[in-house]
Amino acid sequence: MGIRAAVAGASGYAGGEILRVLAGHPDFEVGTVTAGSNAGTELGAHQPHLLSLADRVLAPTTPDALAGHDVVFLALPHGQSGPLAADLPADVLVVDCGADFRLGDAADWEKFYGSPHAGTWPYGLPELPGRRDVLRDARRIAVPGCYPTAVSLALFPAFAAGIVEPDVVVVAASGTSGAGRAAKPHLLGSEVMGSVSAYGVGGVHRHTPEMTQNLAAVAGRPVRVSFTPTLAPMSRGILATCVVPVRPGVTAAALRAVYADACDGEPFLHLLPEGRWPATAMTLGANTALLQVALDETAGRVVVVCAIDNLAKGTGGGAVQCANLALGLPETAGLTTIGVSP
Amino acid sequence: MGIRAAVAGASGYAGGEILRVLAGHPDFEVGTVTAGSNAGTELGAHQPHLLSLADRVLAPTTPDALAGHDVVFLALPHGQSGPLAADLPADVLVVDCGADFRLGDAADWEKFYGSPHAGTWPYGLPELPGRRDVLRDARRIAVPGCYPTAVSLALFPAFAAGIVEPDVVVVAASGTSGAGRAAKPHLLGSEVMGSVSAYGVGGVHRHTPEMTQNLAAVAGRPVRVSFTPTLAPMSRGILATCVVPVRPGVTAAALRAVYADACDGEPFLHLLPEGRWPATAMTLGANTALLQVALDETAGRVVVVCAIDNLAKGTGGGAVQCANLALGLPETAGLTTIGVSP
Amino acid sequence: MGIRAAVAGASGYAGGEILRVLAGHPDFEVGTVTAGSNAGTELGAHQPHLLSLADRVLAPTTPDALAGHDVVFLALPHGQSGPLAADLPADVLVVDCGADFRLGDAADWEKFYGSPHAGTWPYGLPELPGRRDVLRDARRIAVPGCYPTAVSLALFPAFAAGIVEPDVVVVAASGTSGAGRAAKPHLLGSEVMGSVSAYGVGGVHRHTPEMTQNLAAVAGRPVRVSFTPTLAPMSRGILATCVVPVRPGVTAAALRAVYADACDGEPFLHLLPEGRWPATAMTLGANTALLQVALDETAGRVVVVCAIDNLAKGTGGGAVQCANLALGLPETAGLTTIGVSP
Amino acid sequence: MGIRAAVAGASGYAGGEILRVLAGHPDFEVGTVTAGSNAGTELGAHQPHLLSLADRVLAPTTPDALAGHDVVFLALPHGQSGPLAADLPADVLVVDCGADFRLGDAADWEKFYGSPHAGTWPYGLPELPGRRDVLRDARRIAVPGCYPTAVSLALFPAFAAGIVEPDVVVVAASGTSGAGRAAKPHLLGSEVMGSVSAYGVGGVHRHTPEMTQNLAAVAGRPVRVSFTPTLAPMSRGILATCVVPVRPGVTAAALRAVYADACDGEPFLHLLPEGRWPATAMTLGANTALLQVALDETAGRVVVVCAIDNLAKGTGGGAVQCANLALGLPETAGLTTIGVSP
Repeated sequence: MGIRAAVAGASGYAGGEILRVLAGHPDFEVGTVTAGSNAGTELGAHQPHLLSLADRVLAPTTPDALAGHDVVFLALPHGQSGPLAADLPADVLVVDCGADFRLGDAADWEKFYGSPHAGTWPYGLPELPGRRDVLRDARRIAVPGCYPTAVSLALFPAFAAGIVEPDVVVVAASGTSGAGRAAKPHLLGSEVMGSVSAYGVGGVHRHTPEMTQNLAAVAGRPVRVSFTPTLAPMSRGILATCVVPVRPGVTAAALRAVYADACDGEPFLHLLPEGRWPATAMTLGANTALLQVALDETAGRVVVVCAIDNLAKGTGGGAVQCANLALGLPETAGLTTIGVSP
Repeated sequence: MGIRAAVAGASGYAGGEILRVLAGHPDFEVGTVTAGSNAGTELGAHQPHLLSLADRVLAPTTPDALAGHDVVFLALPHGQSGPLAADLPADVLVVDCGADFRLGDAADWEKFYGSPHAGTWPYGLPELPGRRDVLRDARRIAVPGCYPTAVSLALFPAFAAGIVEPDVVVVAASGTSGAGRAAKPHLLGSEVMGSVSAYGVGGVHRHTPEMTQNLAAVAGRPVRVSFTPTLAPMSRGILATCVVPVRPGVTAAALRAVYADACDGEPFLHLLPEGRWPATAMTLGANTALLQVALDETAGRVVVVCAIDNLAKGTGGGAVQCANLALGLPETAGLTTIGVSP
Repeated sequence: MGIRAAVAGASGYAGGEILRVLAGHPDFEVGTVTAGSNAGTELGAHQPHLLSLADRVLAPTTPDALAGHDVVFLALPHGQSGPLAADLPADVLVVDCGADFRLGDAADWEKFYGSPHAGTWPYGLPELPGRRDVLRDARRIAVPGCYPTAVSLALFPAFAAGIVEPDVVVVAASGTSGAGRAAKPHLLGSEVMGSVSAYGVGGVHRHTPEMTQNLAAVAGRPVRVSFTPTLAPMSRGILATCVVPVRPGVTAAALRAVYADACDGEPFLHLLPEGRWPATAMTLGANTALLQVALDETAGRVVVVCAIDNLAKGTGGGAVQCANLALGLPETAGLTTIGVSP
Repeated sequence: MGIRAAVAGASGYAGGEILRVLAGHPDFEVGTVTAGSNAGTELGAHQPHLLSLADRVLAPTTPDALAGHDVVFLALPHGQSGPLAADLPADVLVVDCGADFRLGDAADWEKFYGSPHAGTWPYGLPELPGRRDVLRDARRIAVPGCYPTAVSLALFPAFAAGIVEPDVVVVAASGTSGAGRAAKPHLLGSEVMGSVSAYGVGGVHRHTPEMTQNLAAVAGRPVRVSFTPTLAPMSRGILATCVVPVRPGVTAAALRAVYADACDGEPFLHLLPEGRWPATAMTLGANTALLQVALDETAGRVVVVCAIDNLAKGTGGGAVQCANLALGLPETAGLTTIGVSP
């Protein structure tokens, strides 16, 4: 019999993706699925692609409904994980895909989210230096945001190797599923198809302090991040273009070696061969982060491009990867590196 | 050690999909991969999503290169499977995703393909009545075309039950991957995005006789099919809308019962609950055929809508399902019913 | 000074398209723009593409706000045009893009809309036989629905020429703007991109009786229509595939001649040369209906494919074409036949 | 009778867009249309949306074929404009949409294009300081590249006002039509739909020196530009995100005032109201450049986002705007600011 997993927020995109991964996982068994306003309806009404789970009825998101599981995945609007997690037993693994417990700095939280800080949980990005040791002991894990996943994976090797200056410019394109399932006019298909648009410009996106925190931890000093998200006409995928001043004397070969080393042995971090560039479709449904690097000597900058599936590696796949680690399973169990393409 | 599988035509869309399915299959081991003009290059240059196979070098498509495998999947332009298969040992399972061996009637072949008929192999659509028995003994299997897969699955229950007249109108929308990877101007992204277009109108599409053949076999009498394919702005997916005159006295409840019975026990054939309609995205990457039915009493017609992933159930997944049967594996091994969505 | 035009429902897609056409029209001057719940906000908040009108403030949709114009365009949810129009002066031209006044048969209205019939106005599809004479005198015009526009233009020539039987099957793909701007989960970009889906299957779509009415009027006898709409991943465009039994003895050449004659002299009805098939993108932003025909002798059917821009010829452009006629302007004033493509 | 215009390269995307604009222009008359390998075929086979010009036969691209016109628009692969223009009379206006004559520095040309420099023509971006005076006398005009159009319009106000440091990072997303009509596998719809990808990373894109040249001219000193282009799943549109270090003491209000002043009186340069951000779809088919700005005080950077239609303002519309100026017509003749949206 498998490890019993509950998913809170199962009618949203993040919850659906966690369930999609769990349904193909050899070790987990899907237990209770919950929702907020959709409680009482069938999962299949919201996630028709989850055929084998379609007739499950969504329970309300309460501690009682989530009791009796080995692991609870939370895929809730920010602000809801804190109170809920407080009522879950300490020995149950809780993996939170929300923002509540990602930031170490309460002031950052309050500035960007405008509410009291709930606390800080072990940060669930296993590829970052030293993370796996922390996650193996964890019973509370904060899964990174989708943009910080892409940007942190893109830049931690350069900062760890000390080959760049701490002054980052990131422009990232995201598919619309990153904005969630709440029906808003600007997310209608009629609006987003055939259109790329900017939003959250000027350092105001809530994922910015998370990137800064992660990169500063690797660099061992403060890092400035100018982050601009854009919305692209696709359901899934993030392509993050990260531009950083290169330190004097760093060659293209040295840059490449840094990234080859960082990817070596990492199951989900993949440096493409020279001459090939990441496309988000290569990662569709996969837990892969695809990287490629270039040195622009004229502009004095390193450019790192990272493609992920925002819902997979950026949310649901990343969450299961963390759960695998915390529960002593193979880190790659139930996760694929192969995207559905074309 | 796994069953050794070779894939001929591995740099195309059908070949890539077969490999994607095989890479996640518990029983197969990918052996030789071959190509035509792309022979000598790395698979990853053409199928960058197949990370674990990316540095495989494509061999030329010859009988020698394909020797020494338990199963050979052919994903070649029509006309190439015939000569090649003649040089493969009779005890090796050969699963052909091309058209060469699908039609039983040589005249049909010559009319629609303009070349001599290569022969007829066991037709690889396990859901059709009586098929599984044939496929379990087979060492040669002709995988159906993508459109005939959708249309045959949509309509065989109605014809088997005798509730419709043999005068079918089908209009189907396909994603562009159905047209293959050859670079043609009308398949450029700039042309197809934001646009639905018609092609092959007037009964001239090569998949038409295949539909007629399949439905006539089930109906036990000739069936007329008016088939119009259209190209939709998506990479994958077929939505087939099938409209057939209903026989007198058939009620909506009886119609629904016919389809519920036909789907019962079928792992990949799924009748959606009333009120939900198929969308191709629900099947992305999955081996599922989603069905829904309606009775239009005013027009005197049954409407059956079927959604599949043209590359998955419509090609690569269907091919592996057949191979599973022929090799005595569980029919569902390595195949998922859950699409990557949204 | 121009003809003063008011637009009611200016924050929706239909209203926005009417304004886009009016803004480029040599004879009209945009007066009051109104909205329901968006009243009091700037037009540019809803229609940012209408740069020259962006700072207009939306008035509430009332007779008073609409007074003092030469023409009033109504782009309102069905059921709202009736009461409003009753309070507009009889000598003001009122062009209604809603459904309220399209149907001649009160029973049809009540069956499909479930509310009392408001009445019947002159039907604004100038290309139908005899229509222009009616529209030149009109002060009330009911603009057709987008699907009936495409289907009626596709099939009226065949019925007028008596070369087909009155038993029509139509499957049409529409862009999502046809579903309007109300934010509903199934219309989110994440849901519709990469997906074609069915809806309103089985003769229940409200545009069905409108098609039946139009074709029966041309045929001079009852016509059965099986109509299935599908949703395609594009903002604009309708591709209607219309399949009809051909009468004995009709040749492909005769069929083509019927359509060439019907398009001759029609500014917005265009039969493509043989071998080219309509694509919706060819009509983007244009008032054109593109047609192509084929005779399927094996299936005994005529297939007519029609592409329009559902918002342009299918709504806003069609409305202005009618207004041109009613006001004695050149029918083509302010309307283009050239789409924005690719 | 109108001004006679010839278009060389009429079967490509740039040529088609020039023709689309000319067909709606009150002062031009379309004369000869030419092509390379498509010479001898009908324009409608390549540009089916140009209904009124569809039966024009493409002449070969030779000086003789282009003789006898008042203006010749060149929409040719780079390297072809130079020899051709040398054979056109000096008093005929030649507007080149290719790259041949854009760069003032021969070394830049040779570095990025690998061939001898053809020369430098007046640069056709009227909004840049002092440009209109030059263009009013010109008989040879080099239309800017699509990316340099967006980036130069985004940043010239900041450099002209001296509020930023000359160290620019640009990441831009382009629709696939920017890559032209040559059929290449990576531009197939199946590859680009649902995917954002990087290319030309590391300062190697040919539009980079053009941006540097334009901004340095405005700044009056050297400017470094790190430029990364990405390909987005849409046919048309560029969204350029431009990030530049802000000079000390510049406030958000001062930044906004600089841009409001720069847009004041410019017919095609539009600063959106605060809180609204550019989306490429707002500009579809229009000659508009939409701008919005933000000051990121934490990162010490100005972010300017610019949306254009790469084929309209970025190519064909920009070309006609220049021709209007050079021929003494109103600069806005035949050009719209209103996009086709949604």
